[in-house]
Amino acid sequence: MKLIRFQKDNTVFQGVLQDELVFPLDGSYFDDFKIKEKGWPRHEVKLLAPCEPSKIICVGLNYADHAQEMNLVIPEWPVIFMKPFTTVIGPEEEIIYPDHFVKRLDYEGELAVVIKKTGKNIPEAESLDYVLGYTCSNDVTARNIQPKDGQWTVSKSFDTFCPLGPVIVTDLPWNELDISSRLNGVLKQQSNTKNLIFGIPYLIHYLSQVMTLLPGDVIITGTPSGIGAMEIGDEVSVTIEGIGTLTNLVGKAG
Amino acid sequence: MKLIRFQKDNTVFQGVLQDELVFPLDGSYFDDFKIKEKGWPRHEVKLLAPCEPSKIICVGLNYADHAQEMNLVIPEWPVIFMKPFTTVIGPEEEIIYPDHFVKRLDYEGELAVVIKKTGKNIPEAESLDYVLGYTCSNDVTARNIQPKDGQWTVSKSFDTFCPLGPVIVTDLPWNELDISSRLNGVLKQQSNTKNLIFGIPYLIHYLSQVMTLLPGDVIITGTPSGIGAMEIGDEVSVTIEGIGTLTNLVGKAG
Repeated sequence: MKLIRFQKDNTVFQGVLQDELVFPLDGSYFDDFKIKEKGWPRHEVKLLAPCEPSKIICVGLNYADHAQEMNLVIPEWPVIFMKPFTTVIGPEEEIIYPDHFVKRLDYEGELAVVIKKTGKNIPEAESLDYVLGYTCSNDVTARNIQPKDGQWTVSKSFDTFCPLGPVIVTDLPWNELDISSRLNGVLKQQSNTKNLIFGIPYLIHYLSQVMTLLPGDVIITGTPSGIGAMEIGDEVSVTIEGIGTLTNLVGKAG
Repeated sequence: MKLIRFQKDNTVFQGVLQDELVFPLDGSYFDDFKIKEKGWPRHEVKLLAPCEPSKIICVGLNYADHAQEMNLVIPEWPVIFMKPFTTVIGPEEEIIYPDHFVKRLDYEGELAVVIKKTGKNIPEAESLDYVLGYTCSNDVTARNIQPKDGQWTVSKSFDTFCPLGPVIVTDLPWNELDISSRLNGVLKQQSNTKNLIFGIPYLIHYLSQVMTLLPGDVIITGTPSGIGAMEIGDEVSVTIEGIGTLTNLVGKAG
């Protein structure tokens, strides 16, 4: 099932996408819901980021080839940082280039996991019960700021630096999905989630020992090799097998 | 004025503390409000964390003496990391020692700034217009985890690792406040906010160039020297001139 959030005539709905029609939900996708009968063609609504995370937990260096291209050792435990909610944008929205102090702005295509229900100290074997589904994300990074202070937070936390979408797909085999990123149509990143160093059940188990996971929280699981710079006017897209393509343009501030 | 959040008979209120009486607000402390006439003695209500931040932005190494005790260089720019909202607890609530994988748990007393209104790219000269007030915080840190991966997020992000309170005081001279921390009544940290490397107007200006600040967001501004370990059963308190004392006990998980 393809879960979405969308806006129609200034009202925001949770819904599902079926073929090219969107249908609002009666209820919430975190609980029991029914799909309403009256829908709209997809092009008559605006798709939004498919969830509203209270936490966006990010895993660094989770594909060996990306750790190598950054000249960093493969970590023995997940490298974790966070983005604030103010980074979230939806499909087709603009990534704003903060050129007042960013000199290199990179895409990083990643598989994102959306949490379904509250959990703490989740056993690895039960982790997938806490997953609502999967979506595409772009861990936009101000690369020239990243090495400065050791902490990656600022480089990852500018407004618009977390595109999510277009849909949350339930019931995907998380560890066998092709993932790729394109810049202006040119293939830049290509891998498969089987290459994740720390898999999704372990990440949920590990993180839930630290912090209570809440419905709608997002874990973005790391990027494969092939990261690179974007310029104002570029179009960047992240495609994941079974989910679809998240496309955003890079726009100018102010 | 001392702004608070409190619970009385299962209802949560914003309010003010006047002498030892609490009064609920008619309206929100972010906007225009009136103070209701009927109040209660402070001991008849439960004080909660005084705000509900969507972001808790933390500044590392912002007192020179603390950078020295950590054998770290004084940064040329603010070192920034974040804690999730799930870390927030109020006065008198328990800091839970996550002893399943934390072997050293430290207190870090800090001045916290609470944001009043939405702001982006705030000029330094206007920064204080965006401040609702100031409160005490404890940037609880799993010290033995901190150096592991470079990123500090995990070590700072366990549930209960951000005590806030007891009150938000409006109209304080942010750069001339005595700050101290005590463990079981013994003085451990003692400094004054005049020693902050990056002052509050600059931090608000700097951070608002990165991320939109929202009402209730919190900036915790760094800890002076004297950090140290806590054990289960300890009582830790952070006192800031003009605000009061934030006291928490350290409790056992489960």
